[in-house]
Amino acid sequence: MRGDESNTIKCLIATDNHVGYMEKDLVRGNDSIRTFEEILSIAKREEVDIILLAGDLFHESKPSQKSMYGVMKLLREYCYGDRPCPIELLSDQSINFPDALSTVNYQDPNINISIPIFSIHGNHDDPLTDHICALDLLSVSGLLNHFGKPREREEIDISPVLMRKGTTRMALYGIGNIRDDRLHRAFLNRKVKMLRPAEDTDDWFNIMLFHQNRVKHGKTDYIPENFLDDFLDLVIWGHEHECLIQPQESVGEGYDISQPGSSIATSLIEGEAKRKHIGILKITNKEYELETIPLRTVRPFKLEEVILSEVDGLRPSDTKGVQKYLVTQVNRLVEEAKEEWQALQREYNDNPGECPKPLIRLKVDYSGGFPTYNITQFGQQFVETVANPKNIISFHRRRAHAKDAKKPVT
Amino acid sequence: MRGDESNTIKCLIATDNHVGYMEKDLVRGNDSIRTFEEILSIAKREEVDIILLAGDLFHESKPSQKSMYGVMKLLREYCYGDRPCPIELLSDQSINFPDALSTVNYQDPNINISIPIFSIHGNHDDPLTDHICALDLLSVSGLLNHFGKPREREEIDISPVLMRKGTTRMALYGIGNIRDDRLHRAFLNRKVKMLRPAEDTDDWFNIMLFHQNRVKHGKTDYIPENFLDDFLDLVIWGHEHECLIQPQESVGEGYDISQPGSSIATSLIEGEAKRKHIGILKITNKEYELETIPLRTVRPFKLEEVILSEVDGLRPSDTKGVQKYLVTQVNRLVEEAKEEWQALQREYNDNPGECPKPLIRLKVDYSGGFPTYNITQFGQQFVETVANPKNIISFHRRRAHAKDAKKPVT
Ligand SMILES: [Mn+2]
Ligand SMILES: [Mn+2]
Ligand SMILES: [Mn+2]
Ligand SMILES: [Mn+2]
Repeated sequence: MRGDESNTIKCLIATDNHVGYMEKDLVRGNDSIRTFEEILSIAKREEVDIILLAGDLFHESKPSQKSMYGVMKLLREYCYGDRPCPIELLSDQSINFPDALSTVNYQDPNINISIPIFSIHGNHDDPLTDHICALDLLSVSGLLNHFGKPREREEIDISPVLMRKGTTRMALYGIGNIRDDRLHRAFLNRKVKMLRPAEDTDDWFNIMLFHQNRVKHGKTDYIPENFLDDFLDLVIWGHEHECLIQPQESVGEGYDISQPGSSIATSLIEGEAKRKHIGILKITNKEYELETIPLRTVRPFKLEEVILSEVDGLRPSDTKGVQKYLVTQVNRLVEEAKEEWQALQREYNDNPGECPKPLIRLKVDYSGGFPTYNITQFGQQFVETVANPKNIISFHRRRAHAKDAKKPVT
Repeated sequence: MRGDESNTIKCLIATDNHVGYMEKDLVRGNDSIRTFEEILSIAKREEVDIILLAGDLFHESKPSQKSMYGVMKLLREYCYGDRPCPIELLSDQSINFPDALSTVNYQDPNINISIPIFSIHGNHDDPLTDHICALDLLSVSGLLNHFGKPREREEIDISPVLMRKGTTRMALYGIGNIRDDRLHRAFLNRKVKMLRPAEDTDDWFNIMLFHQNRVKHGKTDYIPENFLDDFLDLVIWGHEHECLIQPQESVGEGYDISQPGSSIATSLIEGEAKRKHIGILKITNKEYELETIPLRTVRPFKLEEVILSEVDGLRPSDTKGVQKYLVTQVNRLVEEAKEEWQALQREYNDNPGECPKPLIRLKVDYSGGFPTYNITQFGQQFVETVANPKNIISFHRRRAHAKDAKKPVT
């Protein structure tokens, strides 16, 4: 018997790995795939039963051959194996996996899978042409299980993947990304139907993978938490890159939300500067526990805001002094990034080695007549110490600051 | 024991499937993948031990997701299975398959393969960026075995895949496509080395997959047959689309050449109008037999040349008469195509069904003052009966005719 308990389904939860992000960058090119490998290696070390991914495995809807190759190789190395997956699959696989030969990979007699992955697609790996996306290529090859692909965009019926281990029964729901306004409208028009098992309906642990805006930006371009059915127990919310993995109770409904956040920073904003984590989710009957694990291969990222007019002794006319001040701040952030990174590594290894060049973002409020600099030129001096020398500084004035910045694509 | 004999290696040989060729064409879009499926189904029906492909499996170096998906699905359906492949692999797999986890797919304990495919790449599926090509994606997923990928372009060492079944030992050589002039020069400079097994060197059946110009176009843009080593027994020559599958003795050397030709016509030239075949190759010790099998899913293609000035009763000034004559010729070719197609189908099935729209090419020599027509407009009337209405006719004058037409890309 693997794991602690024969009645506990043990899952690794992660999302938004964005494999291929900045893959041509000489410094950062391998960041996304390195951390994806770390996630798979944690799954193996922890001997989880399954991996749940909530979308955006790839950064591009048509990943480069290099990214595809890298992911395929890792899946074959980490997910294939002769230790059998102890989870029974009770639902109709031809409904759950209508493509991909209508079978979950670990029950194909011709493939040995130790750790099956179940994934929905995100907006980055959306099925565009011919309704085929990169996840479908992995699925049809037997490398993972892509599910939650709505057949129609009007009436959305969601059939769960039904799983059992010992006494625990889990209904896994998933909706791959749909344009927010469309899905918003579908919910309002009661066109979204979550099907439930007929037998012992109330005894299932109901979990859902979701990949939509959680934060409101405009009227209908997000999904309010109370749109989702209250029979759910836990929603793994992808797409939002900030790590809020500790379960929170949903607004107005009785279910919990865990938002693992991306495993790589794809924009230099505050939410992405938080430490990245994945979760080990243990479900026993109707109860769950979530252990969170910080990812140690993630490139360190420090972000800070400075308001020049509030810095003692700085005068707008003193161009040199301002520049000197900014350089000092960047150097301090680099040092802090290194210390934090080393502290994290020491939890695993006495000899943590050298810290990779960190990402640094200094948000500079220059209101009050302060000068701005050529950002790229400013970064030149940090080519050897910072991973993003070209865009360390972002200048803004108070007015622009108060207004919310445009949402980054996640 | 599968097949007739325990000492016979039974291979299906095919090449240039060009999956994805004209995939957006409403009429011809599925031609390439349909015939690729036919080839796999023959392999299954004939219970071959292995499939050898000599390049250009895909038409594009970056196939569309639709083409990749289609091929992956077929490989999983036809090549995976629990009937074991009876061929022992004797060479160092980390040399034969340095990518793809250094293992031949059918010996990976986590995958059951009944019919392993061994393929070199062609010019159409050449590894461009990062030395990864579409075949490598299939290889790393376990779906086929891509080999013969030169590590360097200067010194080309070719290590064979060594196989044994009973008393038969086969050394399988392969060189994925290299620019002809480059490879030509490498041969001249004695930079191409074919390594041979040290043990019982002369007892092996030596077969090679090759994907280069065989026909001379310029001084160095082809590979003369006498460049290849005379210890070879049989070369499967890809790239040339004309079906010359019946083995011919090589010019000046002691080995035989079988040129299966493409499984789809990618240009409307005479060589492509011949019936397409694949071969069933049986190797017993140092002897081989080749049975050829016509492909029945290939769209019929009739090509003919007419010289207007030699047609009785046609005068250059009689525009209507000339046009009427051409229409008659096209209609006759359509009928002939149908009859030939039906005769072929009847060998398999009493009720052959309806013939798909044929490809028709009429090469019209209009010298002697005959008029030409708008080719597209001429084709309008054949939209319902011909698969290529837009380019049925090609006009030329005797002078242009004598000069060799430019070689199509194969
Ligand atoms: Mn997203
Ligand atoms: Mn994302
Ligand atoms: Mn070719
Ligand atoms: Mn070709």
